[in-house]
Amino acid sequence: MPVWDDVIPANERPVFDSAGMGVTRVGFGRKPALVIVDMSYAFVDSAFPLGDSRVGWPAVAAIQRLQAAAREAGMPIFYSTAVWKASRIETGLWKRTPEVHRALQDPKAYEIVAELAPRTGEPVVLKNVPSAFFGTDLLRMLVMHGVDTVILTGMSTSGCVYATGVDAFSNGFRTVIPEEAVADRSGIAHKVSLFNFHMKYGDVVPLDEVLAYVRRAMSHDNSTVSPVGR
Amino acid sequence: MPVWDDVIPANERPVFDSAGMGVTRVGFGRKPALVIVDMSYAFVDSAFPLGDSRVGWPAVAAIQRLQAAAREAGMPIFYSTAVWKASRIETGLWKRTPEVHRALQDPKAYEIVAELAPRTGEPVVLKNVPSAFFGTDLLRMLVMHGVDTVILTGMSTSGCVYATGVDAFSNGFRTVIPEEAVADRSGIAHKVSLFNFHMKYGDVVPLDEVLAYVRRAMSHDNSTVSPVGR
Amino acid sequence: MPVWDDVIPANERPVFDSAGMGVTRVGFGRKPALVIVDMSYAFVDSAFPLGDSRVGWPAVAAIQRLQAAAREAGMPIFYSTAVWKASRIETGLWKRTPEVHRALQDPKAYEIVAELAPRTGEPVVLKNVPSAFFGTDLLRMLVMHGVDTVILTGMSTSGCVYATGVDAFSNGFRTVIPEEAVADRSGIAHKVSLFNFHMKYGDVVPLDEVLAYVRRAMSHDNSTVSPVGR
Amino acid sequence: MPVWDDVIPANERPVFDSAGMGVTRVGFGRKPALVIVDMSYAFVDSAFPLGDSRVGWPAVAAIQRLQAAAREAGMPIFYSTAVWKASRIETGLWKRTPEVHRALQDPKAYEIVAELAPRTGEPVVLKNVPSAFFGTDLLRMLVMHGVDTVILTGMSTSGCVYATGVDAFSNGFRTVIPEEAVADRSGIAHKVSLFNFHMKYGDVVPLDEVLAYVRRAMSHDNSTVSPVGR
Repeated sequence: MPVWDDVIPANERPVFDSAGMGVTRVGFGRKPALVIVDMSYAFVDSAFPLGDSRVGWPAVAAIQRLQAAAREAGMPIFYSTAVWKASRIETGLWKRTPEVHRALQDPKAYEIVAELAPRTGEPVVLKNVPSAFFGTDLLRMLVMHGVDTVILTGMSTSGCVYATGVDAFSNGFRTVIPEEAVADRSGIAHKVSLFNFHMKYGDVVPLDEVLAYVRRAMSHDNSTVSPVGR
Repeated sequence: MPVWDDVIPANERPVFDSAGMGVTRVGFGRKPALVIVDMSYAFVDSAFPLGDSRVGWPAVAAIQRLQAAAREAGMPIFYSTAVWKASRIETGLWKRTPEVHRALQDPKAYEIVAELAPRTGEPVVLKNVPSAFFGTDLLRMLVMHGVDTVILTGMSTSGCVYATGVDAFSNGFRTVIPEEAVADRSGIAHKVSLFNFHMKYGDVVPLDEVLAYVRRAMSHDNSTVSPVGR
Repeated sequence: MPVWDDVIPANERPVFDSAGMGVTRVGFGRKPALVIVDMSYAFVDSAFPLGDSRVGWPAVAAIQRLQAAAREAGMPIFYSTAVWKASRIETGLWKRTPEVHRALQDPKAYEIVAELAPRTGEPVVLKNVPSAFFGTDLLRMLVMHGVDTVILTGMSTSGCVYATGVDAFSNGFRTVIPEEAVADRSGIAHKVSLFNFHMKYGDVVPLDEVLAYVRRAMSHDNSTVSPVGR
Repeated sequence: MPVWDDVIPANERPVFDSAGMGVTRVGFGRKPALVIVDMSYAFVDSAFPLGDSRVGWPAVAAIQRLQAAAREAGMPIFYSTAVWKASRIETGLWKRTPEVHRALQDPKAYEIVAELAPRTGEPVVLKNVPSAFFGTDLLRMLVMHGVDTVILTGMSTSGCVYATGVDAFSNGFRTVIPEEAVADRSGIAHKVSLFNFHMKYGDVVPLDEVLAYVRRAMSHDNSTVSPVGR
């Protein structure tokens, strides 16, 4: 039973059903990458004003399982996080109070949580906007790896994950969200975002199903990209 | 009282309140443009499988008022719609049944409703993905007009409007959604999308407030862009 | 002997040689696509003010050979051209005289030459700026095909071809220009653009070498993208 | 007399003249920004394999004059540079020898030269590809400032400056290159790139003319963007 079942009213379902929305699946492709969006203390941990430990730490645990499986399969892994900037020109037009802006100045805020720390060779893209594709090299790196499937995880579901998912779809990638590997400070925003995404753009599936896929998809073809200058 | 008040549970509000989310406003800028997303029969009218007349036609009426005010003020107006394509390569990875794909083949599907028909000099961008910025010239045209504020309208709220709004925000525009001028086949998706947008990226405000702003913002400065080759 | 040999002065070569620029090759990848930029009458034929038959028609002949080989190999083929627009907002800031603007209004101007006419299933992207990637769906379609190598042809070498090549490189594609399959109204601009490109971004190679590669690269894997809604 | 006069052959001029190319000017707009591309030791100084002191340091001197005038006028200033990355996935498909790749590892390589050091509040965008717009926040920041005119400077003319200029044009900005404020290790590539740019996309003008414009264009309107959270 999908996570959104208790929030989408029965009288709203017929229009989706009659259009066949959410019935089909995009499906898994042949060359996946794992994308981990904004799993920094600022969002994972309630010590920060935008963070929510109740949902953040369980998502960390789920992503750890995927990260381990992806590493074992030799699958490319990418992370996004932000960098604190003093000026609004560099930060963008986020609706943030001065208190939140100050709290994010803590160097720990945008640090990816230790449990998911990137290893050498696992790129981290820095962004100031919701989507991990916007103003970053993520797309170029996915192209260089020949990726056709983005396994999308992180926080928050309705914010940076959703925006990244729409861009992954718009750029032509099959996009799969393992339900337990995304989290949001709002339960209703979490559920409705996953519903929207699954109806139109990609597949929201249980973590176990994605883990099984990752284990099958052992990478055969990293030969495409050779070391610099060879 | 905001439209989302009856769907965001009371116990989910403190985390937003304590972070000051949704408290501030981005505010109106000095040079607005009106962007009308996908107000074609395919989405407005229940004659098409993705359409919903109950919410679509009232949105048409609201946008008509804005369109008239924008024309009187000399404000730039932009429209988006799609073009039917036979192949999945050109269509993208939308989760659509063959029935929906066939219904969209009707030439009327992606025609903008007559009530909102673009006039000469009001550009229409053609897109195959959710955001009206993605794979179009919309951004260049906004830059050429010196626009700083996007008044965002159309359908559906949780789909193409939301994706366009995130891109408007990410590209540095103040983004204002007049609540009555957007619509969605799902009430819950409509409300939660507006809640998300207002908390983080832009301002969701009553139509009347936007109309008053448009009337104030009579364009003084179209001189920036002269005719071709002069 | 490369085409630029007679225009790059001997005293300018040491700095390139000592940096090893132009020495290495990016090389062919495993999944190529053919991109044919702006081979419309406006650029190919001297009947139009921006056209140059002397170099345009020989390029058509070279591209015809590639197009035939690509079709036989089942390789994806993409075309770009423009659409005439009345207003400068839609046209962009091109430095064009009113006479040129008028000449381009002829419906034949932006029509792809009959000798290279696209077949059903070979997408044409419409653009108003130099690069065929900018404001189009080209990148998404290359991603959906799993392309890693762009074979870049068309006109003009120093204008739309070069801009498209820089974007292909920046998006992570191996980019190969078959020398005879690009053309420019200026011989010096043609040669120096190819020199620049070969020094830094991609490979400029003889047509015959690319033809041999295309014939080897028979497509095995179009299975990735199934028909809509199946 | 333009800098390219001695390299464009007389017999190539009629086609440009008859099309009126290079005759018109795009002209200066009302809200300029100064963009300084890649003026790091790696390109300015012959101590690095891709650098060329003969042309780099004179360009530094020219840009210093513009930078001082821009600061006095309160004009926004943006810089680009790169960050060394170990892996080819992060670096991109640059045609570089292992020797060049190693030389760029020196932390000084991508440091902007001391003579042009950015001040607090003057953003530096980090890029791995030719254009300063690609994979960066530059466009968003220009939009937030309401910029309509990009004064484009830096190195190298035929590489990162040219690619940035094409993107500035494609994004709808009037683009002005002060001739003395750009430089290239190849004289012929420098001249032909400026010729191409001036024929089609923007204006290549003497430094003194740009300095006079900057002095006239004292900023009146930074009020658009207020501090964060106010």
